[in-house]
Amino acid sequence: DPNLKVFSLNSNPALAQEIAESIGVELGKCSVTRFSDGEIQINIEESIRGCDVYVIQSTSAPVNEHIMELLIMIDALKRASAKTINLVIPYYGYARQDRKARAREPITAKLVANLLETAGATRVITLDLHAPQIQGFFDIPIDHLMGVPILGNYFSQREFDGELVIVSPDHGGVTRARKLAERLKAPIAIIDKRRPKPNVAEVMNIVGNIEGKIAILIDDIIDTAGTITLGANALAENGAKEVYACCTHPVLSGPAMDRINNSKIKELVVTNSIELGDKKLSANVIQLSVADLLGEAILRVHQDQSVSFLFD
Amino acid sequence: DPNLKVFSLNSNPALAQEIAESIGVELGKCSVTRFSDGEIQINIEESIRGCDVYVIQSTSAPVNEHIMELLIMIDALKRASAKTINLVIPYYGYARQDRKARAREPITAKLVANLLETAGATRVITLDLHAPQIQGFFDIPIDHLMGVPILGNYFSQREFDGELVIVSPDHGGVTRARKLAERLKAPIAIIDKRRPKPNVAEVMNIVGNIEGKIAILIDDIIDTAGTITLGANALAENGAKEVYACCTHPVLSGPAMDRINNSKIKELVVTNSIELGDKKLSANVIQLSVADLLGEAILRVHQDQSVSFLFD
Ligand SMILES: Nc1ncnc2c1ncn2[C@@H]1O[C@H](COP(=O)(O)O)[C@@H](O)[C@H]1O
Ligand SMILES: Nc1ncnc2c1ncn2[C@@H]1O[C@H](COP(=O)(O)O)[C@@H](O)[C@H]1O
Repeated sequence: DPNLKVFSLNSNPALAQEIAESIGVELGKCSVTRFSDGEIQINIEESIRGCDVYVIQSTSAPVNEHIMELLIMIDALKRASAKTINLVIPYYGYARQDRKARAREPITAKLVANLLETAGATRVITLDLHAPQIQGFFDIPIDHLMGVPILGNYFSQREFDGELVIVSPDHGGVTRARKLAERLKAPIAIIDKRRPKPNVAEVMNIVGNIEGKIAILIDDIIDTAGTITLGANALAENGAKEVYACCTHPVLSGPAMDRINNSKIKELVVTNSIELGDKKLSANVIQLSVADLLGEAILRVHQDQSVSFLFD
Repeated sequence: DPNLKVFSLNSNPALAQEIAESIGVELGKCSVTRFSDGEIQINIEESIRGCDVYVIQSTSAPVNEHIMELLIMIDALKRASAKTINLVIPYYGYARQDRKARAREPITAKLVANLLETAGATRVITLDLHAPQIQGFFDIPIDHLMGVPILGNYFSQREFDGELVIVSPDHGGVTRARKLAERLKAPIAIIDKRRPKPNVAEVMNIVGNIEGKIAILIDDIIDTAGTITLGANALAENGAKEVYACCTHPVLSGPAMDRINNSKIKELVVTNSIELGDKKLSANVIQLSVADLLGEAILRVHQDQSVSFLFD
């Protein structure tokens, strides 16, 4: 269909290429570079007049650069008479700033939604928002896909020497752990962090039976990896036979890789919603592709078909 | 007045401090830092409920970081019930992307105006926009101040051994050169770049009499300094006795400092609309402060008085 155009910006060029191949189109021609002073220069090198345009960009680090690239691209597409401007945002940054936890905080996840709409976006396709409520921050249609089926698929095809148990690293993640557990027909456990008194170290209490089992920790984002590695070590100390960790979005900033390499985590399973760069060289990181999932979503949206079956 | 609050973000803390002193207030308490993954974290550490808030931030390099800081700060102020949110933007970045020069270009100067309004800005105070038309990109009040009086003041207080001539480095800057010339009671000249044939080097033709005179080149922005140093050298070759250069906004990116140091420019006079950092160490750069001008504008805006006398 000549009216379907897919463009990549700078956050995930490899994933964008995979998505394009998965749906059988060529990536649109455009260059996204910098002027000498660091301002973004965008050249869209083919006509997109009257087309349905899909722009692939995670707002991963450097997050502010990636957001501004996306906003400027939307502006250029709008002025070039695109019919629809559909954002494919595998990782939606600033999602943890989704409420005022203290006085006078910004709600940056909502601000970014407003900015994208102001620039001219007409639809968003995204994956595992940190809070599903962020869907409501948009006044345009948003399709919210899930990483759990991809992670579940990987683990279900592996052989394990023992019984599985799916572990949520905190109370907030129990629903996600449940979903993975259902796919793997395994029980769940929860790590229950408690501070017995103020200024006393947290105690990691484990709710559920993990003794002698293969534990799989699951979270949506692994950022500095503090929670997940403390959890993994607590599982090992409490008798888990092996510990795996998985997440959709491998932010992996600051001390994350050191912490993971020095922890009881045997293997970290993530998706390519965020490019790993050098971190891929770490032997125990497995990266699964969301290209087919996002490609399928693009095709179905473009053909005005429901994508709800992709939701879990 | 306890209802007047001035906050600084990260682009010009020294200028913000000077502005606060010039109007006799303390800078508002807030911290603007980064989370481990590079996302901006803002903490406003005092109540601003019902206040008129002025936020000082140039959208200079790193431009995308500085724009996002400003947008997130506006969001936080809005949600903290500020009465008005007034942006003091000494240097407005992306101003050169103010029109579609080619097909399918963004108009980023307009996009940024829309983003600032969407976030919740209620007024803008700025200095020497690259094109005055950018005022019309805003639907909120904008006060557009001029750097020429500050530059003119400096040169009028200096002793020169000869007659002055004010030179515009291109046709676009003639109005600005005229304004400086009027203040210094000097004639003007114009550098008239022409390419005699395609693929033949440009010829620098000088319109006006510069022979034996002290030439002062003036521009709004000096970025890579290509135009200004070629102009300075052409003036020297054509008989100017000395060459000075001045501008409001010292972007000075990439090869700028090398080009200036290797050119016929005896002294470069700029303002502190953009922080110079290391470049200040170059002996021939003079930096004039816009703190009093911006402070005066803030006070007058806050007191609902006209700022038009500050315009030229
Ligand atoms: N990029 C970030 N890195 C670490 N913490 C963050 C980040 N963005 C927001 N937060 C904080 O994380 C908390 C929300 O996380 P959560 O409770 O997991 O939803 C809030 O208190 C935020 O201040
Ligand atoms: N940051 C920048 N650095 C260099 N050139 C730019 C920048 N932003 C925009 N431009 C280009 O500068 C031209 C406008 O400059 P001017 O003719 O001086 O108004 C346009 O063709 C833009 O593509």
